[in-house]
Amino acid sequence: MNPRVQRVYSNLTEEVDAIVLVNGIEPNLDLSFFYVTGAESGLFEECMAILWPDGSLELISSKLEETSASAVDAEIRIFENRAERERMLKNALKGVKRLGVNGAGISYKALQEIKRIIPRAHEVDVWKSVEKARIVKDEKEIMLIREACRIASEVADEIPDFLGLGMTETEAAAEISYRMQRKGASSPSFDPNASFGENSAEPHHTPGTRRLKRGDLALFDFGAKYKRYCSDITRTFPSGRVTKEVKEMYAAVLESQRVGIESIRAGVNGKEVDAAARMVIDRSRFKGKLIHSLGHGLGLSVHDGGRMAPEHDFLLEENCVLTVEPGIYVPGLGGIRIEDNVRVTVTGCEVLTSASREMRMI
Amino acid sequence: MNPRVQRVYSNLTEEVDAIVLVNGIEPNLDLSFFYVTGAESGLFEECMAILWPDGSLELISSKLEETSASAVDAEIRIFENRAERERMLKNALKGVKRLGVNGAGISYKALQEIKRIIPRAHEVDVWKSVEKARIVKDEKEIMLIREACRIASEVADEIPDFLGLGMTETEAAAEISYRMQRKGASSPSFDPNASFGENSAEPHHTPGTRRLKRGDLALFDFGAKYKRYCSDITRTFPSGRVTKEVKEMYAAVLESQRVGIESIRAGVNGKEVDAAARMVIDRSRFKGKLIHSLGHGLGLSVHDGGRMAPEHDFLLEENCVLTVEPGIYVPGLGGIRIEDNVRVTVTGCEVLTSASREMRMI
Repeated sequence: MNPRVQRVYSNLTEEVDAIVLVNGIEPNLDLSFFYVTGAESGLFEECMAILWPDGSLELISSKLEETSASAVDAEIRIFENRAERERMLKNALKGVKRLGVNGAGISYKALQEIKRIIPRAHEVDVWKSVEKARIVKDEKEIMLIREACRIASEVADEIPDFLGLGMTETEAAAEISYRMQRKGASSPSFDPNASFGENSAEPHHTPGTRRLKRGDLALFDFGAKYKRYCSDITRTFPSGRVTKEVKEMYAAVLESQRVGIESIRAGVNGKEVDAAARMVIDRSRFKGKLIHSLGHGLGLSVHDGGRMAPEHDFLLEENCVLTVEPGIYVPGLGGIRIEDNVRVTVTGCEVLTSASREMRMI
Repeated sequence: MNPRVQRVYSNLTEEVDAIVLVNGIEPNLDLSFFYVTGAESGLFEECMAILWPDGSLELISSKLEETSASAVDAEIRIFENRAERERMLKNALKGVKRLGVNGAGISYKALQEIKRIIPRAHEVDVWKSVEKARIVKDEKEIMLIREACRIASEVADEIPDFLGLGMTETEAAAEISYRMQRKGASSPSFDPNASFGENSAEPHHTPGTRRLKRGDLALFDFGAKYKRYCSDITRTFPSGRVTKEVKEMYAAVLESQRVGIESIRAGVNGKEVDAAARMVIDRSRFKGKLIHSLGHGLGLSVHDGGRMAPEHDFLLEENCVLTVEPGIYVPGLGGIRIEDNVRVTVTGCEVLTSASREMRMI
């Protein structure tokens, strides 16, 4: 029995005879495939996992992934070509009438193909059950996220050591990726964001040739991927000199994050946490300058289900892992964001990222 | 008029009133969204592009991506929340009956949502037209791929300089990523594969703590991403000493690739290229040891549509960009693969990657 398969089934609101998770071609992979299989290596394009109501797992894998597949605790079938893949799927799902699919992870095209192969099955979209299962992390997942957080935190603390005036955003981003990988990350969890000066006012800026100048805010948003699990941290450093406005911005963001983190515990609604943290900023001179959600779930994906946002219901449970990332963005001047990762507990939360949050000058 | 939108429409076999491309949450982004918009920066989660039959383009973008969106030549609408997003989509697609979608890039869930918002439209899966448009690259795309190839080639040539006995696979992979980013890549085009010794016999090995030993084969498969466009190169280096078997393997792979590259030109079927290259290996003592396709399309995605594989029809056209990557895999001993990227021309092909293919010892 696979406890993650059992978790998915325990959340179902509609009965199904089987659930199939289908990978497409990169980047269109269903991370839930990796959730149930726990496969730490391998790409698994066009491979499939079948989840049975008794909690057992079947893996239909390409020959290219045979070695990685063999590490998975499942009944494993290996195909060498598309005809074999189709035959294996047909055999495996023979007699299945109500077929669960993860609508958030399967492409429309892949689903049409499955309906052609298994014409008597009708699909039931179980994405909510899959997401719900993944939102609460088990011990193994927390261990991996913890390691991803350790790597990102260490690198965050090293930024003032290697960052200097004249460095470009892309150079800084490359340095961050490299240091995370040297510390054991398989890759960054997303392309690191390094934003200098006015660029830092755009939350999703792509690093470019902008060089760090005296007086800039330098914002870094990045994370490590460790055995497929992600961390996601942001730190902002003023360069050269700090105006009164920047000091106040930093203090407001830090206080907003402190209030947010203190509001978190199992049983609380994420929108209440968002409201508490947002109020700190909205009561400062930077009213309305937090232009995104306070945080989101974190796991196999950087946005792993669940958002702490205004008017968005999200009941926090023990062992949810979340980002808490208030920010203030002033067009023309720049932005400050401070982001950490926490694990929800019964009485509060555990902060998994350990990098210093004090304002450090470059 | 957007010529890429026009290309998509020119390939259609069924009439539609509009085509909508919809991004999900990372990693489930539709790269075709970036094909038509040409947006070089930004993440664009849950954003949408609408392609009209007259060749015009409409972009429905999140506020988070406003700066990146403003660089796109399209009619742009910015939403701040989900309700606005829904309203904009509804207005934009008012009166649309036959709605084209890219089934390979849209999730089942996203499509269900669109059908709920536009209940009178019925979907037409136009993925083939989109793929066909993307397979043949325009001038701008070739320029970007060329740059991605330059970066990867330079790093490939540097491997013997930094690789040493005792280095781990993950350390080597980190070094490759770093060097590519320092040379201008936004990121690797996929997690670099560094495989030492017996690990190199698995084509999709994930780098681990294995250290390079004397007598190992060291295989590196990696690529650069430059303004979203990918390169994909493989080089293999024997370490310390070379047996007669390894010499023969290397020679067979190199000759197979030479024959493959010489067989490519516009009008040829990819399966003929595959057959010609495969025959070189199958006539050597390594018969049957090329266990994957000879190559695939390359562009916004590392697997960008089109495969040169046995029994797979794929008509090569001018300005298709392809990988040519024969390999020989001997379980227990290791593998050798040599991979380059080419642009199909009327008379043959242009090799875009320039790294040395001669056997170089570590």
